[in-house]
Amino acid sequence: MLKYKPKVKTLPGPRSNTYLRKVKKYNLGWNHPYPFVHSGKGKGSFFEDLDKNVFLDFASQIASNPLGYNHPALIKVVKQFKNQSPVKYAGQDFTVQEHVDMIEEVLSIAPKGMNKIFLCNSGGEAVENAIKTAIRKQKGMQRAVSFRRAFHGRTLGALSNTNSSQVQKKHYPTFPVHRLPYDTRAIAFLEDMIKREAHPKDIGYVIMEGVQGEGGYNVPSKKLMKGIRRITKSRGIPLILDEVQSGMGRTGKWWAHQHFNINPDIMSSAKALQVGATLTSKKYMHEPGSISSTWGGGHRLDLLMGATIIREIKKKNLLNNITMQGEYLRKRLDEVSGVLNVRGLGLMCAFDLSSTKKRDDLVLELMKHGVVTLGCSDKGIRLIPPYTVSGEEIDMFIEALEHSLGNCNKKGFKHTGLICQYGYCARDHS
Amino acid sequence: MLKYKPKVKTLPGPRSNTYLRKVKKYNLGWNHPYPFVHSGKGKGSFFEDLDKNVFLDFASQIASNPLGYNHPALIKVVKQFKNQSPVKYAGQDFTVQEHVDMIEEVLSIAPKGMNKIFLCNSGGEAVENAIKTAIRKQKGMQRAVSFRRAFHGRTLGALSNTNSSQVQKKHYPTFPVHRLPYDTRAIAFLEDMIKREAHPKDIGYVIMEGVQGEGGYNVPSKKLMKGIRRITKSRGIPLILDEVQSGMGRTGKWWAHQHFNINPDIMSSAKALQVGATLTSKKYMHEPGSISSTWGGGHRLDLLMGATIIREIKKKNLLNNITMQGEYLRKRLDEVSGVLNVRGLGLMCAFDLSSTKKRDDLVLELMKHGVVTLGCSDKGIRLIPPYTVSGEEIDMFIEALEHSLGNCNKKGFKHTGLICQYGYCARDHS
Repeated sequence: MLKYKPKVKTLPGPRSNTYLRKVKKYNLGWNHPYPFVHSGKGKGSFFEDLDKNVFLDFASQIASNPLGYNHPALIKVVKQFKNQSPVKYAGQDFTVQEHVDMIEEVLSIAPKGMNKIFLCNSGGEAVENAIKTAIRKQKGMQRAVSFRRAFHGRTLGALSNTNSSQVQKKHYPTFPVHRLPYDTRAIAFLEDMIKREAHPKDIGYVIMEGVQGEGGYNVPSKKLMKGIRRITKSRGIPLILDEVQSGMGRTGKWWAHQHFNINPDIMSSAKALQVGATLTSKKYMHEPGSISSTWGGGHRLDLLMGATIIREIKKKNLLNNITMQGEYLRKRLDEVSGVLNVRGLGLMCAFDLSSTKKRDDLVLELMKHGVVTLGCSDKGIRLIPPYTVSGEEIDMFIEALEHSLGNCNKKGFKHTGLICQYGYCARDHS
Repeated sequence: MLKYKPKVKTLPGPRSNTYLRKVKKYNLGWNHPYPFVHSGKGKGSFFEDLDKNVFLDFASQIASNPLGYNHPALIKVVKQFKNQSPVKYAGQDFTVQEHVDMIEEVLSIAPKGMNKIFLCNSGGEAVENAIKTAIRKQKGMQRAVSFRRAFHGRTLGALSNTNSSQVQKKHYPTFPVHRLPYDTRAIAFLEDMIKREAHPKDIGYVIMEGVQGEGGYNVPSKKLMKGIRRITKSRGIPLILDEVQSGMGRTGKWWAHQHFNINPDIMSSAKALQVGATLTSKKYMHEPGSISSTWGGGHRLDLLMGATIIREIKKKNLLNNITMQGEYLRKRLDEVSGVLNVRGLGLMCAFDLSSTKKRDDLVLELMKHGVVTLGCSDKGIRLIPPYTVSGEEIDMFIEALEHSLGNCNKKGFKHTGLICQYGYCARDHS
């Protein structure tokens, strides 16, 4: 029985709009946020905004909210802190129990052989520390290797490996990172690069996402993954798997790369974990002082939230639900006319529209029907519902999708109203 | 009336030691954490560890805990969330009210002319975004300028400006950053650099701390600050003030640079603010999409904690207490024999010992007497009590200091026991 159903009156509603106007005025990072403001209310896959609009959330705070809204196990965590503050310590110098809880929970699901972990504050920082961990071993590093359409974060070290969108890198300095295609051609290219251009010791690392996120929810082939692993292993080049978006169970396995039966040397995690984490093995152990972070491993609430999320996934066997509902979602999507290139693993799904304009229109139209989704790549839409999503909710989504697509395909379709100031409004629409 | 008094039985106590052993085993960032584990209990300047040891805290979670332990205003904040989870959203895309609260509170205390702000997850990220903001304007950037003993963070962009300790940078790639001495010679050096080596447009930015933190709690001269501001202004080079540690009231003014009557172009904040923030003016506004962060501006609890801290500082006029108690602390320190080079602004104070070994010994000995301090530079000790510290607590600290110094000066002094595995134990001691 669902308590909530999508229900939208005005977008943005007047209360939300008051806040959005201020964000627009003051936020240096302004980039068209969604046309509603969260009220904190909601349950499971549904949330309410300040104007009592109700949304079905297939974006999950960009994969950061794996158990949905106001999950009882997480409310219990928050309640534990009700008589205590601060909840945030300088965790690398001043130890809190929750740091150890989190370390133990993550290591219980870590890829084979990984028994060293560093906790930090974001996915970007997790990637920075993964890179630093690799380079510390490849001391003569001249360049590194990443992939076409990769997204690894925004801090300048992480950003050097990112190839997702021009505006993210324009004018910023970067370290030399060689870009490979995200398909099996990459295997020969990397081999050739080592043979002709670079001694393996000169290559700091190869970094790749388990499944590409912002770049298009592109699932790599087993051949690509195994080929890259084979070369990097035989040449002694550290392979970093960036599982910030694809990890923590999102694909039906704890880490996306486990679908391809490979083991990385270093791994980054964040988002669903609630903190950033860099994992590796003893072989990559650092000199004390060479990596650190004031707040890393010290945010008691975030740490306990993350540890509880792992425990809950285990307890409720959510990886099964993720696999099952992911398959059901893709099956239903395949039946919808106008939906192209359905892809994904588990509940990390996407499809394309025939153009960027159509994609942008659809994201907005879905929102008007109370369904929140995210774009990716040029014309893709990501579907990342909570791990607890039900078949009934997927049916509800498909119904809204068919209806919204129908509207978008009507002749002369055009969005109107304040909504065009926010959200991913079509670029050629005013 | 003080409820608590410093009281230490064993360091580390058995319960703490259980956790510390695990941190040592698994933490890739292992760097000798303090020999106790926080229990969350405490009040004001005092906290309890898991073994019921009580400490007077003159380290304040590396300046991240400005109001001390379990401040009523902050407990009230945590209580507000007791029926809600998650408290963490993807804040740049999905707006929460607390984002706007925080923006308004920070802008109410921002340096003159600053009306654009970007919220992110750490001090390192705040510096990364400050750098990106500068470079976006100085498109032809060939190099940047920072100072001797500067600390600006650990992510590779921020780290390029850091000159605090060799182990922090060893083997890592960096962007070209020219280092100036942290004294008035820097003025002529910068002028000479512009004249002979670099067109002003080639210099991405000059970055400096309001008061140097990790590098030694070094207070700059007004002449240095005004000289650097004069050149950067006349040459059109963005001046970034890094106020991650020195800002948010710590020095008795909201931002340390305000002691020198200058205005930066860009500023970074974090620590006491509970989130990272980059501030600037309209002139430096970005193209949408050029900076972002999944969790930035979305951690409802941290945002409301930070906003509440600002409100509480205003309401209780804590800047006055900071100035007054800072002066009192430095006056009392000046009377202690063996304490060298007393310095600081407000409650950002430090002193030196005659050697690194003596400093390390004293930090440990103070801890055995229930007083927590932090080292800085080669032989310095930082004193960063909460903004609410009382004269009585400062007297308590001075008493412990005199007693501990006396012990350290005894012939053949040596630490013993498990404590030597943790904390800043003397380097030549086993």
